[in-house]
Amino acid sequence: MANTQETTRILRRLLASGMNARAERLLARMRPADRGPLLSGLTPPELRTVIDLLAENERAASTLRELPPELLPEVFDALGDERLAQILTRLQLDDRLELVEWLDPERRDPVLRLLPAVERLELGKAERYPPDSAGRAMITSFVALEEDTPAQEAIERIRQGAPDDETVLYLYVVDDKFRLRGTIPIRRLVAARPDRPCSELMVSDPISVRADADQEEVAQLVGRYNLLAIPVVDLEDRLLGVITVDDVIEVIHEEATEDIYHMAGLSDEDRVFSPARHAVRKRLPWMMLNLGATFLAAWVIGLFERTLEETVVLAFFMPVVAGMGGNGGIQSLTVITRAIALGEIEFSSGLRAVGKEVTVAIVIGAITGIASGFMAYFWQGNAYLGAILFVTLMATMAVAGVLGAAIPLLLQALDQDPAVGSGVFVTTLTDIFGFTAFLGIGTLLLDRLA
Amino acid sequence: MANTQETTRILRRLLASGMNARAERLLARMRPADRGPLLSGLTPPELRTVIDLLAENERAASTLRELPPELLPEVFDALGDERLAQILTRLQLDDRLELVEWLDPERRDPVLRLLPAVERLELGKAERYPPDSAGRAMITSFVALEEDTPAQEAIERIRQGAPDDETVLYLYVVDDKFRLRGTIPIRRLVAARPDRPCSELMVSDPISVRADADQEEVAQLVGRYNLLAIPVVDLEDRLLGVITVDDVIEVIHEEATEDIYHMAGLSDEDRVFSPARHAVRKRLPWMMLNLGATFLAAWVIGLFERTLEETVVLAFFMPVVAGMGGNGGIQSLTVITRAIALGEIEFSSGLRAVGKEVTVAIVIGAITGIASGFMAYFWQGNAYLGAILFVTLMATMAVAGVLGAAIPLLLQALDQDPAVGSGVFVTTLTDIFGFTAFLGIGTLLLDRLA
Repeated sequence: MANTQETTRILRRLLASGMNARAERLLARMRPADRGPLLSGLTPPELRTVIDLLAENERAASTLRELPPELLPEVFDALGDERLAQILTRLQLDDRLELVEWLDPERRDPVLRLLPAVERLELGKAERYPPDSAGRAMITSFVALEEDTPAQEAIERIRQGAPDDETVLYLYVVDDKFRLRGTIPIRRLVAARPDRPCSELMVSDPISVRADADQEEVAQLVGRYNLLAIPVVDLEDRLLGVITVDDVIEVIHEEATEDIYHMAGLSDEDRVFSPARHAVRKRLPWMMLNLGATFLAAWVIGLFERTLEETVVLAFFMPVVAGMGGNGGIQSLTVITRAIALGEIEFSSGLRAVGKEVTVAIVIGAITGIASGFMAYFWQGNAYLGAILFVTLMATMAVAGVLGAAIPLLLQALDQDPAVGSGVFVTTLTDIFGFTAFLGIGTLLLDRLA
Repeated sequence: MANTQETTRILRRLLASGMNARAERLLARMRPADRGPLLSGLTPPELRTVIDLLAENERAASTLRELPPELLPEVFDALGDERLAQILTRLQLDDRLELVEWLDPERRDPVLRLLPAVERLELGKAERYPPDSAGRAMITSFVALEEDTPAQEAIERIRQGAPDDETVLYLYVVDDKFRLRGTIPIRRLVAARPDRPCSELMVSDPISVRADADQEEVAQLVGRYNLLAIPVVDLEDRLLGVITVDDVIEVIHEEATEDIYHMAGLSDEDRVFSPARHAVRKRLPWMMLNLGATFLAAWVIGLFERTLEETVVLAFFMPVVAGMGGNGGIQSLTVITRAIALGEIEFSSGLRAVGKEVTVAIVIGAITGIASGFMAYFWQGNAYLGAILFVTLMATMAVAGVLGAAIPLLLQALDQDPAVGSGVFVTTLTDIFGFTAFLGIGTLLLDRLA
């Protein structure tokens, strides 16, 4: 990556001086994955020239998969329907599906009509699976064998496959109804006597996933059982396709981004170089919601106007109450949402987790409460103020612990994404509780404070 | 996972009634990855019995790798030095290294002395690599071939390997100084004519990683180039080991957890079921730091005591200023830290990212500023108050955008983890700016507010 910028500069100079043949050689020497970042630095007309150069040499398909999706509409505009159909045909099902999603709806039908029938049908079937499901992430090129096939014939079948297809890691054994019976790691096949039947080589009862399963489940299974690929089956256990580990890695990145983003109220599509107006449109609803929440807190404080008028000093400590409660709540929330995402926790073991978070919160609340009580006392010279702050912090932290741990578990139990919006819930409720406690106790002890 | 609890219950009943042989059969039928979660539910004495049962049948090694590390000290206590050394010998280098880290320092030498010399030396060498480096994550069992080795002989070499070792995905071609020349995907070997030399089958100029590289770099390379394994080399490009994709998946999970955790001021080791006292010890320093930050904000507010005494209404809106600025800052921070973690951004392209974040922040600040201005006006019936809130929100959001985008980039440029502590920096500075702006303008327009 270090010299991406340098290479981009060279490429642009070659294009500007019309030295297309040299530009093409430069691109041909690169790995497809390195072309993506390079092409992101080009202007739209330059990008079109490059895709044209690549398409002539059948390198466009592998490059398009690596481009940031925001650039795709630009590239599609530059390609004729036939060339686009050619490129789509050359891709695996999962990549084809992804590119078609970025296609202008008006061009969709004319382009898809140019695909070979098999590829078109496959695409249509895959599009009927729910978004982010296994059925949309699978590829349909795999080697399926029968139980009595000898090892030698299995090797023959691999030889017949596409020579570039280095993704064959397991072979799949199916019965006469195409139901999955077992998998054979390719290494085991290599070491086997040529006449041994597949039934003796296969690992039976293999881990598989249903086509309608969420991609998060796929990632969890692949991670837990250290798989290199996972077979996708239908309701009757018939083999439909395979998801390979490189796609799973993308899913893991996506899911992690989603979790991190959702906690901050961001949409998945709001990436570092997506256009500003896009980001505004995605973030504004959340910020308006957040505005409402902060006004709720403002209203709660307003209820204590008289108290604040008499002892304005209480107002100084409101950021302490809000900041400590908010951070404590977010910490519990983070631990629990991450544990849910990694499949380390279920609702049943959740109670134990809530208990732990509350214990931790109370202890930390007590310690920071004592520290802040003394600090307030030394600053303002009023022991009651210190005591109120101590009690408030301890209570608020405890509430923050309960809310931070329980809200994501509840959302999860209600089949909602435990990360979305948890943060605003937790901090709003914690703020309201904290302000009410602090200013409420302050009101009761008003004559000791003034 | 659905019936883990049920299985745990059965296992405990078998152990309680001394039916160890049946318990063992139950465990033998399970996949190693399923034994980990099951064993987490046992009491320490039950766990010891189970590990003893597994050790007798050589299943302990594969099970120990899958146990949550917190349970390891307990298990080690139950195992004699010789049995423990036996188990360690059976593991791959990376797992051996990880288990040894959890070994009581006093038992370390006696146990390691019982390891075969090769394994002991290997371990000693690996321990000299920095934490979280490629040298600590690699395994040392791989097939290395010379350029003129024919395909048939390469296949023979695979046959000689351990029969269970299904991790051979690539073979490595080295020169006479053991320098890495190329890799051969096993599928290509299977399809090759028996007499073709490795030099014709190999992919030359393979992606590799240096032993002292950080595991995050390993994960980025494997993800970008869709590798199934990456060779680890020394300074002279000599082949030392291999990191397989299943370990990379663990690294990706770890790094994502680290990023999510660091933003909330949590330590990586603070997991959902780690003991409460552990969590308190880990979180307390961060919460004390946070306490200091909130007191700084309190002190800033204290500077405006006179203003607040005259118009206590200003105090109501402090959570609005802090909440909006804080959330805006965290959003920019999240987008940028995630982009850094995924390698989508460098310091040089960072300026563009900061520009975008500030633009977005100003637009959102203007819109939410207008909304909050009107809300404040209708609530309190004072147009000046609304105007002050509008100006403050817009300015604070802009500052939050700059800080949220720039701080992680600066930390990254200074070779610091961009996630650690960024959050507390951004929110503290935003709060201080917001309160100063809000109460400062309020002081200037005091006669219009009262």
